[in-house]
Amino acid sequence: MYTILVYDTATERNAAVLRTCRKYLRHQQRSVFEGELSTAQMHRLRTELEQRIDRAYDHILVYTFPPGTDPRRQSWGRPDDQPHDIL
Amino acid sequence: MYTILVYDTATERNAAVLRTCRKYLRHQQRSVFEGELSTAQMHRLRTELEQRIDRAYDHILVYTFPPGTDPRRQSWGRPDDQPHDIL
Repeated sequence: MYTILVYDTATERNAAVLRTCRKYLRHQQRSVFEGELSTAQMHRLRTELEQRIDRAYDHILVYTFPPGTDPRRQSWGRPDDQPHDIL
Repeated sequence: MYTILVYDTATERNAAVLRTCRKYLRHQQRSVFEGELSTAQMHRLRTELEQRIDRAYDHILVYTFPPGTDPRRQSWGRPDDQPHDIL
């Protein structure tokens, strides 16, 4: 399934969340990842992230679309060559 | 078109960007908005945002999908009753 993930986590956990997301998805903007995931990959990603976040504080929003969904992507502002805070 | 917008702007401009996005889209998570926009609304939103951001520093990522796209939305972590930093 096509996946867009946006995390909103405390600063001290951002690096761990970023590393975990990068294993499965492309880094698109500071807290935004996207790509195709199988159901098994989605399950592993969720399990790994839930081990790294504080579930009382952090929040991760995950959109999924049917396989083959090809969103149009626009970048407004700063050129979109690289995410801003590469760790 | 169905729209997901994620902003990555300097702290001092977040409130203005948030207020502008709220005129057109639903606030879904700290920096994430979504909803249906017409081409005219998309154009106005872009024009208003580009007046408020520093185009050398800030970045706004906009995904668009065909009208009627209905993404599946999952929230991991903190319950998703309200965005975290309501201004």
